[in-house]
Amino acid sequence: MYYMGVDLGGTNIAAGIVSDRGEIVLKSTVKTPEVASPEKIALVIAELCFEIIRGAGLCAEDISAVGVCVPGSVLPEEGIVEVCVNLGFRNVPFGHLLEARLGKAVKLVNDANAAALAEYAAGAGRGCQSLVMLTLGTGIGGGIVINNRIYSGVNHAAGEMGHIVIHQGGEECKCGRRGCFEAYASATALKRLTRDKMKENPDSVMWSLAGSLDSVGGGTAFEAAARNDKAAMQVISQYTAYLASGITSIVNIFQPEVLCIGGGLSGEGETLLSPVREILDREDFARNSKKRTRLVTAMLGNDAGIIGAAMLPLYDI
Amino acid sequence: MYYMGVDLGGTNIAAGIVSDRGEIVLKSTVKTPEVASPEKIALVIAELCFEIIRGAGLCAEDISAVGVCVPGSVLPEEGIVEVCVNLGFRNVPFGHLLEARLGKAVKLVNDANAAALAEYAAGAGRGCQSLVMLTLGTGIGGGIVINNRIYSGVNHAAGEMGHIVIHQGGEECKCGRRGCFEAYASATALKRLTRDKMKENPDSVMWSLAGSLDSVGGGTAFEAAARNDKAAMQVISQYTAYLASGITSIVNIFQPEVLCIGGGLSGEGETLLSPVREILDREDFARNSKKRTRLVTAMLGNDAGIIGAAMLPLYDI
Repeated sequence: MYYMGVDLGGTNIAAGIVSDRGEIVLKSTVKTPEVASPEKIALVIAELCFEIIRGAGLCAEDISAVGVCVPGSVLPEEGIVEVCVNLGFRNVPFGHLLEARLGKAVKLVNDANAAALAEYAAGAGRGCQSLVMLTLGTGIGGGIVINNRIYSGVNHAAGEMGHIVIHQGGEECKCGRRGCFEAYASATALKRLTRDKMKENPDSVMWSLAGSLDSVGGGTAFEAAARNDKAAMQVISQYTAYLASGITSIVNIFQPEVLCIGGGLSGEGETLLSPVREILDREDFARNSKKRTRLVTAMLGNDAGIIGAAMLPLYDI
Repeated sequence: MYYMGVDLGGTNIAAGIVSDRGEIVLKSTVKTPEVASPEKIALVIAELCFEIIRGAGLCAEDISAVGVCVPGSVLPEEGIVEVCVNLGFRNVPFGHLLEARLGKAVKLVNDANAAALAEYAAGAGRGCQSLVMLTLGTGIGGGIVINNRIYSGVNHAAGEMGHIVIHQGGEECKCGRRGCFEAYASATALKRLTRDKMKENPDSVMWSLAGSLDSVGGGTAFEAAARNDKAAMQVISQYTAYLASGITSIVNIFQPEVLCIGGGLSGEGETLLSPVREILDREDFARNSKKRTRLVTAMLGNDAGIIGAAMLPLYDI
């Protein structure tokens, strides 16, 4: 039996057929229609799904169910997208709209939770009992999977690990608090740290790498640090301290079997994680335990949403 | 059928017979023998248990199993107390020692987890799906119960909510980090804040209430604030801000159905919680959700350890 996963984003809709082992059989992507009604988007998704099913030489009966992940808050039991700013959805019964189009059971899930489930089931956490995922991007996304189940709290809004305060009264966060982890350790925060340091250091290699302040990326400081640029090394050291502070707090709360770091920055691999691990080894409350949390980078990249959404029916949600 | 719960502390050993609804039928307490071997302590516990069983007019066959909570780290599957500083235990197979004495299955659990399970099963969280408990005492203890199960991570050391950093680089914490929640929001921290403010304010009512700096208690500032002492009100306001910061972060991570505050300070009830709730209502990431975390004080007081330990066999541990 196969499963269909759909990653519904503000820019693109990606969908794929996934095996029960979490392997993608065939996938495809279309642009998300702009300023479209939920009905229109459901139609586009249905067409994309049927196209992929045909492309794979399968028929609709081969697909057990369809999972859809959304960058917003969902009520899975009711099949409702509560709020999705990027798509302009508010209390949309999107699960039912899509079920009507597909003739299949449709399950909804938040995209960060889908990514966590994918890494748990078929990625960096395969075979583990508990996994916490942090996605370092524009913000910091989070997902929690415990004993084969996404944990999403009483209102499906749990896992906002980016919104723990690490610096009371510090940087403004878009959530309305000050000093959130996200305001210090997201890719956006790293870019801010990079730009601030560039302004102080007109001779830094970072200027020639980025071209201008506007073109600074999450990798600028990493690349310059690899060339022994002192200012860049200071940026990385500062960023690492922030990242390790939040990660250590999250480990102290969960002591998950696996703590998985995703998002663009996770491409830096051990360059990113090794100094974080050094701080974690010093500050983890359970640093003397025989069993310790494994800190790893995500394996599934942009496919995590498709895979996690597709595998929903295989897990107790 | 009845259950026996034992709360093994450094000073006292309390034990009680508990019904399957979490009611204590009969309980009793003895002093913990000083500098005693694990064998000796097991003997004292067994004698206490049999005495209570006789006192309740029951016989050993009426007791299904025995649960023991310990202020330290335990390996429940192996029946081992890994570390318990107060008792001087390190890797002690205490479950087996006690099983031999009692002729009953014995389950071990960390005391903070036992308290959380008790409030979940029979206290402030009865009937809820997820509960996070914080105990404000010398430190900040924590316990997590999700879907009828204590969550304790890969090494049974999860739930150290006192050791999330809320002020990077701030106050030293005994865990080795700086700026931990515990260093700002435990009863110990409140006493420190109180003493610091008293030194600055020789005319504060806090002086006459406490007598001296050495006699400051967790309630000193609350009592003086109730009498409109300005300095005390500043202490409470500062303490509340710290407490609310950590609590809001924990709500953002878990969005539990119930967040339960225990420990001596929880006796302040709404005087303590109401200003915290005001900040939480403003800063909770899910403040607009229909379902919100209920912030409540613990109901079971010092009996929570006995009740939680006793009820272990009724929950999936």
